[in-house]
Amino acid sequence: VAAAMAAERALTMATCTAPVNIAVIKYCEVRISPPAEAEPLTLSPQLKTTTTAAASRDFTEDRLWLNGKEMDVGHPRVQACLREVRRLARKRRGGSEDTAALSLSYKIHIASENNFPTAAGLASSAAGYACLVSALARLYGVEEELSEVARRGSGSACRSMFGGFVQWQRGERPDGTDSLALQVAPETHWPELRVLVLVVSGEKKPVGSTAGMQTSVETSPLLKHRAEVVVPERLAQMMKHIQERDFEGFGQLAMRDSNQFHATCLDTFPPIFYLTDLSRHVIALAHRYNAHHGHTKVPAGAPGVPQRRDTFLGPHVPPIPPQVAYTFDAGPNAVIFALADTVAEFVEVVRRSFPPATNGDQFVRGLPVGSAALSPELVAAVVTEPVPGAVQYILHTKPGPGPQLVDDPSQHLLGADGLPRSRA
Amino acid sequence: VAAAMAAERALTMATCTAPVNIAVIKYCEVRISPPAEAEPLTLSPQLKTTTTAAASRDFTEDRLWLNGKEMDVGHPRVQACLREVRRLARKRRGGSEDTAALSLSYKIHIASENNFPTAAGLASSAAGYACLVSALARLYGVEEELSEVARRGSGSACRSMFGGFVQWQRGERPDGTDSLALQVAPETHWPELRVLVLVVSGEKKPVGSTAGMQTSVETSPLLKHRAEVVVPERLAQMMKHIQERDFEGFGQLAMRDSNQFHATCLDTFPPIFYLTDLSRHVIALAHRYNAHHGHTKVPAGAPGVPQRRDTFLGPHVPPIPPQVAYTFDAGPNAVIFALADTVAEFVEVVRRSFPPATNGDQFVRGLPVGSAALSPELVAAVVTEPVPGAVQYILHTKPGPGPQLVDDPSQHLLGADGLPRSRA
Repeated sequence: VAAAMAAERALTMATCTAPVNIAVIKYCEVRISPPAEAEPLTLSPQLKTTTTAAASRDFTEDRLWLNGKEMDVGHPRVQACLREVRRLARKRRGGSEDTAALSLSYKIHIASENNFPTAAGLASSAAGYACLVSALARLYGVEEELSEVARRGSGSACRSMFGGFVQWQRGERPDGTDSLALQVAPETHWPELRVLVLVVSGEKKPVGSTAGMQTSVETSPLLKHRAEVVVPERLAQMMKHIQERDFEGFGQLAMRDSNQFHATCLDTFPPIFYLTDLSRHVIALAHRYNAHHGHTKVPAGAPGVPQRRDTFLGPHVPPIPPQVAYTFDAGPNAVIFALADTVAEFVEVVRRSFPPATNGDQFVRGLPVGSAALSPELVAAVVTEPVPGAVQYILHTKPGPGPQLVDDPSQHLLGADGLPRSRA
Repeated sequence: VAAAMAAERALTMATCTAPVNIAVIKYCEVRISPPAEAEPLTLSPQLKTTTTAAASRDFTEDRLWLNGKEMDVGHPRVQACLREVRRLARKRRGGSEDTAALSLSYKIHIASENNFPTAAGLASSAAGYACLVSALARLYGVEEELSEVARRGSGSACRSMFGGFVQWQRGERPDGTDSLALQVAPETHWPELRVLVLVVSGEKKPVGSTAGMQTSVETSPLLKHRAEVVVPERLAQMMKHIQERDFEGFGQLAMRDSNQFHATCLDTFPPIFYLTDLSRHVIALAHRYNAHHGHTKVPAGAPGVPQRRDTFLGPHVPPIPPQVAYTFDAGPNAVIFALADTVAEFVEVVRRSFPPATNGDQFVRGLPVGSAALSPELVAAVVTEPVPGAVQYILHTKPGPGPQLVDDPSQHLLGADGLPRSRA
């Protein structure tokens, strides 16, 4: 016991969380130089990484665990973050030997866990590096703005340094060192907005997103047009929709921009495919659902209200106002945006369209979802061709905060011995 | 017997064939007005429709059979073709009552058959209307240029009025009446060029191509850029590649343009998907096959020859010279271009990658294909993740002629009684 207490005293530990981010206006960079992953506008949901960083004079080597599995701590991106936080700490101490401060020469242990599926297109590396840098900064008492440091881990990590809605600004320098992320609106700005992640596959994505995007920059003529002409206009529109909490505008633009991003992936040579047949099923389901409510909620033939059609937007016919909107990042999972009062019905539509194989009671996770009865008309119009078991589960979440310090010591991922706690 | 002979004497009949067409530079129109289907550059393979048109004073009504099944002859597009050919015939006769000529008041019977799968993205309606107009013109003794008439049936039919390589020229009039098709090179121009159609599904395509394209014109910002900036340049390049029989240039541009066309479909709102997971398999297979031969045929590190990589075209690294090239029209079937000496090996690669379910001996149809032994290196590098039964069969063909008159009376699709012959 005495030895354990001595070890505990010698151990300094800090735990932080950081959110993943979901792009609502997606990648459109035309330069190859870093930052490689340029999503102009993202949303941080309550899906997060938790990271504990610990330092001790008793540790004999740096070690790293991801989701309980030990990884190579020598990864250049991890080392770059570690080096940079230590540099800031050294600078802060002004070269003086502060004996009360944690020694920068101690070895460190790092443990990191996600509350969402890893590497399936949910910006897990962004959350991971944002969280790593936050925990390290806390450990070493660094209070500087950390976006720039986090970017050394992942080009997109700076976006996970804020909650709510985050805009990435590119800067002027060719090396990207003056690019930065800004919070457009905090997580409390739009209380009714909900996010449903349809987790359709635990598989790793086939092409690393950085390699894919570099190839797009080099080979896609459409990406160039998108970056130079389309996105600047869409970015301004989307900021306005968010400011005004205009779900129709927000949802429609999110769908269009997701589709256009994947179009530029397809225009890459060789082409990159993130959307699968199942993604197409989800996309078609969302359009059928919106079309059904477009028909039923808008009185057809009412003065000034044009007739709407399901599969064809004729000239001068305004688009169907969406009840739900989809977006797909560099992976097969579908992200659905909806307002809170739509969630229960749409979740039931998803459950009917992708009947759960075995885990029926764990099909919906995250925030609670009420029950909803579907009208026969809705089922007939929307629930066509069910695909059993195709959706593993639904994560129900909403906009969340940026990196947070975890005060409760029982939440540390490392135990008093500096090793990962065994999880029940 | 006497009655039958009398009926036969009263019956006038003509049979023609017309080819489908495969777009090598694809749809990029920005106007909604007709012609709706603007494929700037196409190839006519030896896949064709055969149509017999017959007229008799004994017929009591107009009738139409497609692939042996009676259809509604009142279809507006069929009627438009019929009306237009009769108008040309009347004009030709100059109003004089030529008693030797077939009466324009007789009812007609039409039978049409395809030697390829119908409505699976192989421009079957183009071939069908080109063939209908050719057979009707022959029946009525019309010898005018018929592209304009065929266009009343299908916007793309004018391209099936020629063999070899066909360019569509748009004209200036908003109604499209001065647009026309021109033969760029005859079917004999490139004797080594081969076409493999991987028939992956007999299903009908989910969205009619005209509706899809109109929606694209209205909603896709990328289509506008493609039409105004990208395609004019690509069209000139492709004409040059064809003129010079440059397979590397031809193949690479065909693949890129197919991908970009499908990108604009995805940028349409709601999005249009013609490519499926199986299309992605075929695309990946072609890239692996080309990469393998890019590695083996180009000595790596040879002076002036840059290293090539499979999945990433780095800056200043010229693309891998293709041995095979894919293109997809508005349907799931893959079309592969290759030179004759590549066909046997690639067909064997397809057979290994999509092992035939039952019809192993009918897996390859059309022109004969030699046998090929695959090296273990090729199999290891290219034949990954076989998908049994996914490809129904392969059609092996090559550039073919435009509409042809069928002289042999035994080839008429209608019998002496004016009804479809029963096929053995």
